Amino acid sequence: MNEIIKIRPADPDFRAEQNAALNAALQEDYEILGRRMARRGIDIETVTELVSRFGVAVPSWGTGTGGTRFARFPGGGEPANVFDKIADCAVINSLTGATPAISPHFPWDEVADFAELRQYAATLGLGFDAVNSNTFQDHPSHGDHPLSYKFGSLSHTDPAVRAQAIRHNIRCIEAGEQLGSKALTIWIGDGSNFPGQSHFGRSFDRYIDSVKQIATALPPDWSVFLEHKIYEPAFYSTVIQDWGSSLLAAQEVGPQASCLVDLGHHAPNVNIEMIVSRLIHAGKLAGFHFNDSKYGDDDLDAGAIDPFRLFLVFNELVDVEAGSGFAKAPAYMIDQSHNVTDPIESLISSAIEIQRAYAQALLVDRAALVGFQDTNDPMMANQELKRAFTTDVAPILAMARAREGAAIEPLAAYRASGYRQACIARRPVRTAGGGGIV
Amino acid sequence: MNEIIKIRPADPDFRAEQNAALNAALQEDYEILGRRMARRGIDIETVTELVSRFGVAVPSWGTGTGGTRFARFPGGGEPANVFDKIADCAVINSLTGATPAISPHFPWDEVADFAELRQYAATLGLGFDAVNSNTFQDHPSHGDHPLSYKFGSLSHTDPAVRAQAIRHNIRCIEAGEQLGSKALTIWIGDGSNFPGQSHFGRSFDRYIDSVKQIATALPPDWSVFLEHKIYEPAFYSTVIQDWGSSLLAAQEVGPQASCLVDLGHHAPNVNIEMIVSRLIHAGKLAGFHFNDSKYGDDDLDAGAIDPFRLFLVFNELVDVEAGSGFAKAPAYMIDQSHNVTDPIESLISSAIEIQRAYAQALLVDRAALVGFQDTNDPMMANQELKRAFTTDVAPILAMARAREGAAIEPLAAYRASGYRQACIARRPVRTAGGGGIV
Amino acid sequence: MNEIIKIRPADPDFRAEQNAALNAALQEDYEILGRRMARRGIDIETVTELVSRFGVAVPSWGTGTGGTRFARFPGGGEPANVFDKIADCAVINSLTGATPAISPHFPWDEVADFAELRQYAATLGLGFDAVNSNTFQDHPSHGDHPLSYKFGSLSHTDPAVRAQAIRHNIRCIEAGEQLGSKALTIWIGDGSNFPGQSHFGRSFDRYIDSVKQIATALPPDWSVFLEHKIYEPAFYSTVIQDWGSSLLAAQEVGPQASCLVDLGHHAPNVNIEMIVSRLIHAGKLAGFHFNDSKYGDDDLDAGAIDPFRLFLVFNELVDVEAGSGFAKAPAYMIDQSHNVTDPIESLISSAIEIQRAYAQALLVDRAALVGFQDTNDPMMANQELKRAFTTDVAPILAMARAREGAAIEPLAAYRASGYRQACIARRPVRTAGGGGIV
Amino acid sequence: MNEIIKIRPADPDFRAEQNAALNAALQEDYEILGRRMARRGIDIETVTELVSRFGVAVPSWGTGTGGTRFARFPGGGEPANVFDKIADCAVINSLTGATPAISPHFPWDEVADFAELRQYAATLGLGFDAVNSNTFQDHPSHGDHPLSYKFGSLSHTDPAVRAQAIRHNIRCIEAGEQLGSKALTIWIGDGSNFPGQSHFGRSFDRYIDSVKQIATALPPDWSVFLEHKIYEPAFYSTVIQDWGSSLLAAQEVGPQASCLVDLGHHAPNVNIEMIVSRLIHAGKLAGFHFNDSKYGDDDLDAGAIDPFRLFLVFNELVDVEAGSGFAKAPAYMIDQSHNVTDPIESLISSAIEIQRAYAQALLVDRAALVGFQDTNDPMMANQELKRAFTTDVAPILAMARAREGAAIEPLAAYRASGYRQACIARRPVRTAGGGGIV
Repeated sequence: MNEIIKIRPADPDFRAEQNAALNAALQEDYEILGRRMARRGIDIETVTELVSRFGVAVPSWGTGTGGTRFARFPGGGEPANVFDKIADCAVINSLTGATPAISPHFPWDEVADFAELRQYAATLGLGFDAVNSNTFQDHPSHGDHPLSYKFGSLSHTDPAVRAQAIRHNIRCIEAGEQLGSKALTIWIGDGSNFPGQSHFGRSFDRYIDSVKQIATALPPDWSVFLEHKIYEPAFYSTVIQDWGSSLLAAQEVGPQASCLVDLGHHAPNVNIEMIVSRLIHAGKLAGFHFNDSKYGDDDLDAGAIDPFRLFLVFNELVDVEAGSGFAKAPAYMIDQSHNVTDPIESLISSAIEIQRAYAQALLVDRAALVGFQDTNDPMMANQELKRAFTTDVAPILAMARAREGAAIEPLAAYRASGYRQACIARRPVRTAGGGGIV
Repeated sequence: MNEIIKIRPADPDFRAEQNAALNAALQEDYEILGRRMARRGIDIETVTELVSRFGVAVPSWGTGTGGTRFARFPGGGEPANVFDKIADCAVINSLTGATPAISPHFPWDEVADFAELRQYAATLGLGFDAVNSNTFQDHPSHGDHPLSYKFGSLSHTDPAVRAQAIRHNIRCIEAGEQLGSKALTIWIGDGSNFPGQSHFGRSFDRYIDSVKQIATALPPDWSVFLEHKIYEPAFYSTVIQDWGSSLLAAQEVGPQASCLVDLGHHAPNVNIEMIVSRLIHAGKLAGFHFNDSKYGDDDLDAGAIDPFRLFLVFNELVDVEAGSGFAKAPAYMIDQSHNVTDPIESLISSAIEIQRAYAQALLVDRAALVGFQDTNDPMMANQELKRAFTTDVAPILAMARAREGAAIEPLAAYRASGYRQACIARRPVRTAGGGGIV
Repeated sequence: MNEIIKIRPADPDFRAEQNAALNAALQEDYEILGRRMARRGIDIETVTELVSRFGVAVPSWGTGTGGTRFARFPGGGEPANVFDKIADCAVINSLTGATPAISPHFPWDEVADFAELRQYAATLGLGFDAVNSNTFQDHPSHGDHPLSYKFGSLSHTDPAVRAQAIRHNIRCIEAGEQLGSKALTIWIGDGSNFPGQSHFGRSFDRYIDSVKQIATALPPDWSVFLEHKIYEPAFYSTVIQDWGSSLLAAQEVGPQASCLVDLGHHAPNVNIEMIVSRLIHAGKLAGFHFNDSKYGDDDLDAGAIDPFRLFLVFNELVDVEAGSGFAKAPAYMIDQSHNVTDPIESLISSAIEIQRAYAQALLVDRAALVGFQDTNDPMMANQELKRAFTTDVAPILAMARAREGAAIEPLAAYRASGYRQACIARRPVRTAGGGGIV
Repeated sequence: MNEIIKIRPADPDFRAEQNAALNAALQEDYEILGRRMARRGIDIETVTELVSRFGVAVPSWGTGTGGTRFARFPGGGEPANVFDKIADCAVINSLTGATPAISPHFPWDEVADFAELRQYAATLGLGFDAVNSNTFQDHPSHGDHPLSYKFGSLSHTDPAVRAQAIRHNIRCIEAGEQLGSKALTIWIGDGSNFPGQSHFGRSFDRYIDSVKQIATALPPDWSVFLEHKIYEPAFYSTVIQDWGSSLLAAQEVGPQASCLVDLGHHAPNVNIEMIVSRLIHAGKLAGFHFNDSKYGDDDLDAGAIDPFRLFLVFNELVDVEAGSGFAKAPAYMIDQSHNVTDPIESLISSAIEIQRAYAQALLVDRAALVGFQDTNDPMMANQELKRAFTTDVAPILAMARAREGAAIEPLAAYRASGYRQACIARRPVRTAGGGGIV
């Protein structure tokens, strides 16, 4: 195990020092916002409390610089191993107070001693969220993967390849159990590039059969999350291409299976917030991989391209919370590729944008909205959402951070900390390889 | 009831006369194609026989000129009532031999005496396919529809509007029973134009509840087809926006409910043939509304924009037929808007394009294809499909028509018949109104 | 000419009364926001002053209820003629202070005496913006249009149809001169529904030749705005389908021609703000038709679907204003179809959203942004835009209105005024016809 | 220089042997097709002659296995250097007779002695087409590229990076001159991932200024081809994102600059054949990068997804050839990523599909088509295109090959030759690196 390097942003004193000059203005802004909200009948403290409790998991792989099929331009001080990644995640959580868990990816994050890894993370205040299996790449240096996934994994025509992929997923569950995870996320690249290459029906049958076998290895309190994606890496057909296929598969696999929504995995123009509602109706909403996109699966920072869409997704979630509630709370994870930014900064910014959308959604007057809906008054219904969305909730987010001892201005504090420079000094340059972002 | 006007294309002697000059070349082309196919081990007669048996229903509303929200440019001699529409459908079937049934739309096609209507159609050699209900327009001149569908129908917030829409659907079933139909197709425009306007979850619940009530009125040998559409006339959300929602609803409504696929009702880039396969997997494929599109729900003539996609859809269907077979054969209907062409010509051309795709799909060597799929040889799998698609099956289609006494060259025969000119002379000009195309 | 009906929202006393109870809170909110902005080095008064000066034209046709090709559900009290439309526009401008001009559409708005029309509008405080020609519909009741535009207008294969369309555009210019307009906007539906139907090259040549002839009739201080649209009403090809074709045509027509950007007329995923920048580079940005869309040319209310995109468009415009400035200021018009709302409410709301985006764009620290751009700091560049966008500028917009004597809360004042009810009582019900929205 | 390995498919005797058993059937099929075409008034020999003369360039990089950002699954026997690539290209040309030129990519294909490279290719019957510069990746092992292209190249904010990129392009021209090329193709990945990151206007200005500098180094008989792409590797904005920007740039750079169309670089739904027509109108059509796509820039094999679209592109080209002709013939190149197939097989298949589309387009009766267009008969115009497209031109393509001494069935001959197995035996396994496909 690596030495636990001294992480300045994780030092409460450093953060307190950074916050010192900002506290007064924050107090003023927060009080003013509280008064404005009170005029609308909203208690700011209730909102701040809910925001404080909100957490989103950070992907271990997101701490490295991502790339495209054309190139990867490495950033400085990239993590060399899973311990480095955890250190970076600790920076993010220390500054935002919003990312208490890591979502690991195997075999990328494999270690000899998972207990040690868990302990290391705990020391830094972090737990483990859903584990992710990787059967979309070959792992020639891992003895467990002698066969290639070039033509698929869980849906491969060759039973031996399917067996290998199933075994890998079961090992992920075993690793996850040691880490304290409660869910396995399965995303596969299986599909085809040419009409005729795959038999749609038989591929789907094989996929479901494989996942059923994996599900038998799930502990009773675990879930398996099925993640769909319209295309890439397969460019003509993908086995789990949309939420309909994901739902059918989850229905057949059984009650432990549900459907994960990645915001960038849909056809152009698709109404994602409606898919969220439909999966809630079906009792099969697993949770989210948050990111943003303009064209394809761009994996840009959450809220960077269409912040209103992010708000509308949270509007659906808060609506359920405010009503019947979820039988099982959805899992929130970030899944992004940071190609041109410092990954830590992108994850900080994204966590805040996700909280912002949540806070805005909490401001919607649900009773008023239902009234406008029931009387078919689209103008006032829409105005109600707009009023929530255009409210500047920055003071609420900052106050939630301040009270938790995180940073009032996380990006500024991060830059002030010199953490990246320290990493550049300590960590080797990583030139090879792609970003491997789901 | 209207006089049965003398329909020249429906006269076997006229068609025989038209075919006379074409028979010799057709025989030669057919024999040559037969020899080429025999080289590949395919019996042309088997294909011709299957093509002969293939039928696709024509929509009654398709015989009028369609339009857009900007304008409708009426064609000449448009049908003034359902009897005129049936006469036009008889022309299409006489010339193509491929469209033996009409799909009626209510209340557009309402008459006082359905038995007379059925008899009239039978005299012209036509039966009735799925009936279509219309709750996406107001029908102020029909006493049964005092309430407006402006804010929805089967999913409306007002129980009285839902009840009205349910009653209309039940009346459609009753009309369909008298006409010999066996299915009701439900397409609604319900949705919203503004975020916040509708509650996604409650709208969906109301829709399902309404369809369940309609389903209780279905005779035991009837089906109800649920048709999804991504958008239009609603521009932010649509209650049954994709096949996932359609499937969820059909599952909850029960075994008589299944999902109808309109080729133009999908998000950009979506792989439609894969959706067909998934609905087959779920046992919920109702059938098709054929048309083609480049942008949205363009409702262009089948095969006009992407003939290879149409072929790939039939490739899925033929694959099932060649294997386990369908428990219930899918329903085939055309659903197009003919804005700039003579609707009869567009329906003739479309019926032929649909047959063409079917015939090409029949040429695929299924055993060879499975072999290439199982050994992951995408190049040869793709070549197998391409070879089928690039085969010029025109002689097969023409021979199927010739043997049935239809026209070898239907469009030329139609133009030679002077039917349109006769209609222009007899039928009043219809300037008002939109195209009302689903 | 119609009696000038008593328009309550246009009565300053009514508005003052409505504002009375809101003034105190507005003053407080405005001062607080001013202090927060001062902390960032922004003078709120400068912003409020610019917002006050900002105006967007309202389309005369937008005051009626729109529809789709499936149906039009009329609203109550729709305008029966152009005088009614102007009265409705006066309501909008009285309440928002942001819509001082009307964009008329011919032959829809044709009157015998344009001087009287101009006088009537002036009495209500309104002027006339760009005139719009309509050659995408037939006008059988107008003697000037004996030929049909079914197969095109300015690009029609028949010179007689082209001549008719050219004459109509020239008459629009003549009408506009009498009304005080300074620009003609040309949008045509010319295109094709089938591969092969049109010759792309020759159609384009004919279009350019026709516009050149129209341009010869332009007074020296007039402009002609060419509006592109990817599809609809033509569904396979459109003559002016994108900004590239629009630019080529404008270049060939000459210096009085430029390119109008309608936000809903683009292919999915297209970066519209970049097109704005490119047209600025080419010196050919005419201006905008504002609206919002999720799927196609949905013509929804501006800012309803993607408010961040609207902000990014204004970010480009403000950037030029803040720098070299425009040789000729872009023209701002709303172009929407109000299918489910009261059109007056939608136009009020849209004008406010457009102002909001403009105000937010004014908050960007341009010097700082350029600094981040030049040093390739995408995170901070993006944060700068986000900070502007998440600022709640509602107090600025309301103060600008208050100072002009418009309504602090326009929608609430409108509902309180009883204007719609008065219209319902006076105006006949309009059941027939489509929405005719460009 | 590598030994020229014995290339069996390049041996005329091998091909003659492969063809021996196929000649008789081909003769029969060709004669029959000739008779059918004669009935339509088309001389098959004219078509075959034009097909024989048609050539499309093969990209050197296309001979390696491509990949996605997720993974690259290497194929066997991949080329280790540019000589290997040329050997593979020789195989393709020997078997198809349709790919006489190679399009090289620098610095990937850099060698010490370009004269030797040219000689080597000539020995194998190959010349060199447009050279491609690569400033979308860093080249740390090439001394000429000390600066990173992470934040752009020709449009970079830093003049030193721009100068480096300009120099590289000029070196590409110099290399191309030695190889006998006559054009430089510039595709850059410059753009941004975040709103605000780049200044659209200034980036574009810098790009144009850089290309102008490159253009000064062009020999008088050279062209520079500007290639646009909507997105990827940049995910929010791209400097040359569409044909409009490409056109503006080409206009400003001058007469040697023109616009290259890659079929996969457009927004969803865009009508590409119309863009081809517009660039012809502007006198700026450089040529094509052929491939096919369903979602984004999938870089699938030409004609694999939408063969009718490929036909419609050729329909535009043949129309010009049949009329006024091109002042400068468009350049035809393939640009694909072969992720799951043997690259040689994909390039063979693609070259044939491109020829097929060309041959089909030659069958259109242009005079008849113009007649249908001029009389607004969309049905018959469309039927004319369909008749050409559904004609099975395989015998023409095969006869053109047979007469040139290429293979009647190239894929079968290739598999029979054992070439890939020989490569696997001789060439080292290449595990690292991406596909680097433009």
